[in-house]
Parts: sequence; C-alpha cells; structure tokens
Amino acid sequence: METVLIKDLAKFVDQEVEIKAWVANFRSSGKIAFWQLRDGSGFAQAILSSTELDETKWQELQKVSLESSVKIIGKVSKHPKKEEYEIQVSDFEFYQIAEEYPIAKKEHGVDFLMDNRHLWLRSSHQWAIMRVRNTLISATYDFFREHNFIKIDSPILTPNACEGTTELFELDYFDTKAYLSQSGQLYLEAAIAAHGRVFDFGPVFRAEKSKTRRHLTEFWMMDAEMAFVDLAENLKVQEDLIRFMVSAVLEKNKAELEILERDIKALENITKPFYKITHVEAVKKLQELGSDIKDGEDLGADDETILTKQYDNPLFVTHYPSKIKAFYMKRDAEDESKALCADLLAPEGYGEIIGGSQREDDYQELLKRIKEHRLPEDAFSWYLDLRKYGSVPHGGFGFGLERIVAWVCGIPHIRETIPFPRTISRLNP
Amino acid sequence: METVLIKDLAKFVDQEVEIKAWVANFRSSGKIAFWQLRDGSGFAQAILSSTELDETKWQELQKVSLESSVKIIGKVSKHPKKEEYEIQVSDFEFYQIAEEYPIAKKEHGVDFLMDNRHLWLRSSHQWAIMRVRNTLISATYDFFREHNFIKIDSPILTPNACEGTTELFELDYFDTKAYLSQSGQLYLEAAIAAHGRVFDFGPVFRAEKSKTRRHLTEFWMMDAEMAFVDLAENLKVQEDLIRFMVSAVLEKNKAELEILERDIKALENITKPFYKITHVEAVKKLQELGSDIKDGEDLGADDETILTKQYDNPLFVTHYPSKIKAFYMKRDAEDESKALCADLLAPEGYGEIIGGSQREDDYQELLKRIKEHRLPEDAFSWYLDLRKYGSVPHGGFGFGLERIVAWVCGIPHIRETIPFPRTISRLNP
Repeated sequence: METVLIKDLAKFVDQEVEIKAWVANFRSSGKIAFWQLRDGSGFAQAILSSTELDETKWQELQKVSLESSVKIIGKVSKHPKKEEYEIQVSDFEFYQIAEEYPIAKKEHGVDFLMDNRHLWLRSSHQWAIMRVRNTLISATYDFFREHNFIKIDSPILTPNACEGTTELFELDYFDTKAYLSQSGQLYLEAAIAAHGRVFDFGPVFRAEKSKTRRHLTEFWMMDAEMAFVDLAENLKVQEDLIRFMVSAVLEKNKAELEILERDIKALENITKPFYKITHVEAVKKLQELGSDIKDGEDLGADDETILTKQYDNPLFVTHYPSKIKAFYMKRDAEDESKALCADLLAPEGYGEIIGGSQREDDYQELLKRIKEHRLPEDAFSWYLDLRKYGSVPHGGFGFGLERIVAWVCGIPHIRETIPFPRTISRLNP
Repeated sequence: METVLIKDLAKFVDQEVEIKAWVANFRSSGKIAFWQLRDGSGFAQAILSSTELDETKWQELQKVSLESSVKIIGKVSKHPKKEEYEIQVSDFEFYQIAEEYPIAKKEHGVDFLMDNRHLWLRSSHQWAIMRVRNTLISATYDFFREHNFIKIDSPILTPNACEGTTELFELDYFDTKAYLSQSGQLYLEAAIAAHGRVFDFGPVFRAEKSKTRRHLTEFWMMDAEMAFVDLAENLKVQEDLIRFMVSAVLEKNKAELEILERDIKALENITKPFYKITHVEAVKKLQELGSDIKDGEDLGADDETILTKQYDNPLFVTHYPSKIKAFYMKRDAEDESKALCADLLAPEGYGEIIGGSQREDDYQELLKRIKEHRLPEDAFSWYLDLRKYGSVPHGGFGFGLERIVAWVCGIPHIRETIPFPRTISRLNP
C-alpha cells in the first residue's frame, strides 16, 4: 500500500490508506481513542476503536504519548461539516513512543521555546509560519523567472568594510580579514551589464547591538537590479512583486492563515494601488500624528509604526534627503538635496519591507560621493569601473524576507519568521 | 515605443523596435557598420548604413567603442539561414561611450580575468555559464515544490565547531565564538518532524587550504531531508532531481550550451537509469584501472576522475565503510562495517556532485557514535532530542551547485561556475 499525504486525503474518501505521521494530540473516551495526526502536509484525526482493533493493539495504543511517530492504516471519511478528514484505523504500528515531550499545552516563556526551537518548529503556529515563508520564497522565484531576471548569487565573504565596521562581522580569511556581506547590491550592479535584470536571495548579516522586535543578526535578503529603468519603473516592479507574493499566500495558505488567525481582508487589499508620498509629506504627517521627528530626519522604527497604522495597504515613501541615504543613490535632477529613492512600508504598523533607489551612473558624480562619504576609493575601483564601461541608467531594490513574513502572517516579532533565529543573545540551537 | 528584449525579436520581424543594449563587438566596411548587441537576454546584429542615417549620426557612430551602451531603433529581419535576427538601424543614441575596455579578444591570464570578474561576467562564455546556473537553480525549486518539500533555511552562524575547527571559519559573535556553516543537514533533520520533507539552498563555507579545480571556500549547497524514506527511495529522489535539472537545461539553454561547445549527447544520456555500484566494487574497479587505492579507503578526487571517465551517465557509489563516513550515517544492518550511504558521481571525469545517506534514528546508537567520534555531547543534545521525541526512519542528501554547473557546462574548473569566486587566494572583487 502506498503512503498518502494528509493533504491529499480528499482524493481517498471511503478508501483504505496508509499514513506515516506524528501524534500531535490524543484523547480517549473508554472504548474509543482519537489521535490528531501531523505528517508535515497537514492534520487529520485518526479514530481507534476497541471494536475495530484486536486486544493486543488496543493495549498497545494505550502507550501513545505526545509526538510519538506512527504508521496507520485505515479508511478515510470526510467530516460531515468541515473540510477535514478522519481515518477509521484498522491497524497501526509505532515507529517510536516518544519520551515526555517538553513543550506542553501550557504557556512557555520565549527563551524556553527558543532553546527548544528544534522542537517548537512542530507547533501548529510555527508550522504555519514556515509554510507561508516557503510560499513567499517560491513566489519570489516564480515572479523573477516570469520577468526575465537571472539569479546571480552575490558573495557573502567580502574584502572591505565599506561603510564602517561597527555593524559588520569580521573574520580571519587565511592571512587577511574578511567581512560578512550586508547586501549583494553592488555585485548585482556589475551583473546587469551581462544579464540586464538580475536578483540574488540569500543570508546577510548585521552585527547590530539593537534588541528590537524587528532585528536579527542573520536574515534573508533579496536584492534585484535592473538596467535601463527609472524610479517609477522600479517601483512598478516592486508593487507587482509584493502583490504577486501576497496573492500566492492567499491562494495557497488559507489553512495556515486561519491557524495564525490572520485578518485575510487586510491582505486582500493588496489588489488596490499602493500609496505613495514623499519624505517631506511623511514627516509633515508624522508631526501631525504627534511624532517628534524633525524636518529632514530619517524615519525611525516608531515613526514607521505610527505612519503605517494610518494605511490599509503598503506605502511608498519617496525622495528622502540624499544626505541621510547611501552614497550610491542618484540625486533628483530637479532638487539635488533629494535622492531618487523609495522605501516600501507595510501597513498595519509593520513598516519597512523594501528599500530601493535609482543608482548614480555617472563616474565623476559617483567618485565625488565616495570621497564625500570618506569611503576607501580603491575598494570601490571595480564598482567605479561599471561607470566607465557602458554605464546605463539603472536601479534596484532589496527586501527583507523576515519582515514580509511577519507582516503577511500578522505576527509581532520577527524572531518567529526564520527557522533558527540569530540575535545578539542567541546563537542556539 | 516600448523596448523589446533581443530574445523576443522573432515576434517582431518586419516591425520597428527599440532595443537598449551594449556593443559587444563592432566592425565597419566603408558605408556600412555592424554592431553586435548584447542586452542580457541574447545577442543580435545591428546594421547601420550611411544611406539610412543622417550625416551627424553617421559621424557620431564612428565613436563607438567596445561595451558602449546604446539605445537603437530599427526594423527587425531574420538571418536567411540561421535562427538569428538583425536590426536595420534608423536611429540610435549612446548612453555612454565606453573607455578602452580592458578585456580584449586576446588571451588573458586567469588572474587578470578574475581581478576583472565584474567585467569578465559579460563575456559570452561567462554569460552562458551563469544562465545555465540560473536554470539549474530554478529547476531545483520547481522540483522540490512539485514533490511537496518545504524550504527551511538553515542557519549560517552556528555555535559549535562540531567536527574540528581546521576547515571552519571562526568569528567573534558578540562575547562568544561562532562558526560559518558547512551544511544545514542537522537542522533539516529537526524540521522533518514539522514538515515531512524539507530542503535548504544557500552558501556554505570551508576554510580548506586545498587549491584544486574542485574547491571553493564559499559555495552553494542544497540539502534535502525526508521523513519515512529508506536509502533506495532517497536515491530515487536524487536521480529524478538530477534528471529534471539537466532536462531543464537541455530545454532552456540550447544557445548557451552551443556557446560553451558542450557535447549535448553526453547530457541527453540522463534519461537512462543511473549506474549503481558498491564501494567495494568501485575500489576493485579502480585497482584494475591502475589506482593505488587500498581496500576500505575513501575515493580521492583522482580516483573519482578515473572511475567516472568509464561511465556515460551518473554513477552511485553505495555502502562506503562506515569508519570513513560521518557519525550520523546509519549502518547497514546486514553488515555493520558499511554505512547506508551513497555518493553520486557525475560522468566524464567530473566526480562527486551529491552525498547522501540514511541517518541514524536510534538514540542509543547515535549517542555511541558521537562518543566514538569524540564529539562534544552537549553540543549535540538538541540533535539527540530528535531521537527521543518521535524518531522516524529518515534520510537525505546534499548537492554542490557549482560542481553540477561545471559538469553540465562541461568546463574543467569550478571557479567559473559562481559569479564571484572565493578561494584560498582570492577574496576580490
């Protein structure tokens, strides 16, 4: 008999199937026992009755414990009212009867759960979050393939501490020093002249000492870079991408969003156009909302929270002051004090999920910025080369996967959005 | 006028289009000039004639240089004999006239090319390799989605130097030490109890001092892990995956394989069943072929080369002696001296592309192995937990992306298979 997955049970109603799974929960009422099975693809209830099973099996099943692993054989039936399936068990076998499982139904502290992350991943909330994360990753690849982007894996080990070392992890690299990458963008800019449109998607690292609900020291970032685009075209791609990703989750993860008690309506808004305001307008609005932000200042995390609670859909904040933005951002020809850039902020208080900009494509201008920012010129000689040999107008953006997962799942803390989170105080398991 | 991609020119024959591209090559014969255009999606020839263009434009085009960036407008026609398209240019504009391009048609040394990797990526060979790499990545995601695997990103920053520190990169992690991951397998084993089948796909790091054509210090690895499989089922998944990946390249990268002068026939063999021999048989065969390998020894890189030159399709070598394999591999119940494992070797001398095995699922046995290997027991307490709480038969495998790219592209050295290679002597650009 071939093993079937719980997610496929609908195809096997009234048939006998074999399922391999873990016992996520169990209860018994005299002559009948109920096991909630979890096989990774979904959940189903197994019904074990003393009239169906012989005495030996009936005795054996009393040994069941939380998280025991089993193979069962039984007939599939549909729950009369819900889209759930049950199995009337005719035979079963334990792979292993689990020892007393440390994660009980009672409330545990976050540190305890994180110490047991290797087990906590099995909990239905965590299961649902990882499934949504998987859909968001998968949708990203689909979108970029559909739009003629080539994946160019940018390096993690980099030779220069380009923008100061305070937030960089440093390591000995044979007889020199190396630094863990914070973004692949500069490398992608090199690749557009070969491939036109490129993206990377991998882990990046920030040795930030900040302990907030939005920070991890290791997280997954996607950078995209495009030749021959202006800021408006760049934002269009971002809007299409985010819309595509959220739609994929709405389509594929209904059950998971239900487990997470996510307000689906809030996600369905994504079909409407995203909001767009300038940094000047955002600051004015924030001041009206009671923030102490000053004109020309960057938005802090709290500002983003206050601001995006006003919106029911993602919001682009464009044209930040160039002096608070990175050296490579092109300036607005109409107002040199502004950068041709935008951050995309998720609604409902979530804040920044994407940062993007037009890149400076003029050699002399770029050299000037590098000097102004007191960056080591020779470390950027290869990057400057790109402006010597067929420079083109170009731009791109990067998203932080975990922040998108947090928003889409509607969870407050980013630490649950990655399988094995790394923070200033956590490197385990 | 909307810009079209060169790859789509077939749809625009006899129509006027706009193309944005780089001049990859150019020549002139009196009243007519030919530019080879590259826009990332493909290559096309632009024909510029003094009868079609006004005098100013005709003078301007004389300034063209290798890698200049241009926008051209012109009518599309098909090459009478080949699947190639030409554009009869009616107007053009330079974005930038490139300075003298350092990579000429003449032969350059590898060090020079690698120093200029940010430009070398534009060369047609390198372009083709990255496109094949992209297809292999994309096919991996498709395959795993199709087969109900969930992506679980394993961490790069890990707390323990589990198997000795000689090949590990170490870094300061706030007030402790961290190590860059060499494989996510152990973490994936934790995730199967939540998701059944999982994979990761990301960079891994080896501080190996070896300078060979098969080694990089940073490379991309895919690990897959499955609950409820035996070794035979595990190998079946590997065979299906590799077949799926190579078929995708044959389907999508005909032009690229031609540029690389790859023997297509050698790749088309992939539809035949893969070969399978035991380690004992492999050693015997190698001894016959003149290798000095001794019974019970591991296959060296040279052995893999000699052996796989005998085969026209990938070859599984199974049942290595358990004492030369990792502690977590389950032993063969019929012969405890053998591990339930297999390496998959690519033909034509390429050698190992996949390593996989059944994992030890018994707590006491695993604990014994950890002690035998003198590994720090407390570092593995979470890994041992997986055998306490619903242990199941399981196995998995990992592939090295760059080795697969090298084989599929038919190139001898792995350093060209990754955008920005890192080796013992290279951390730049």
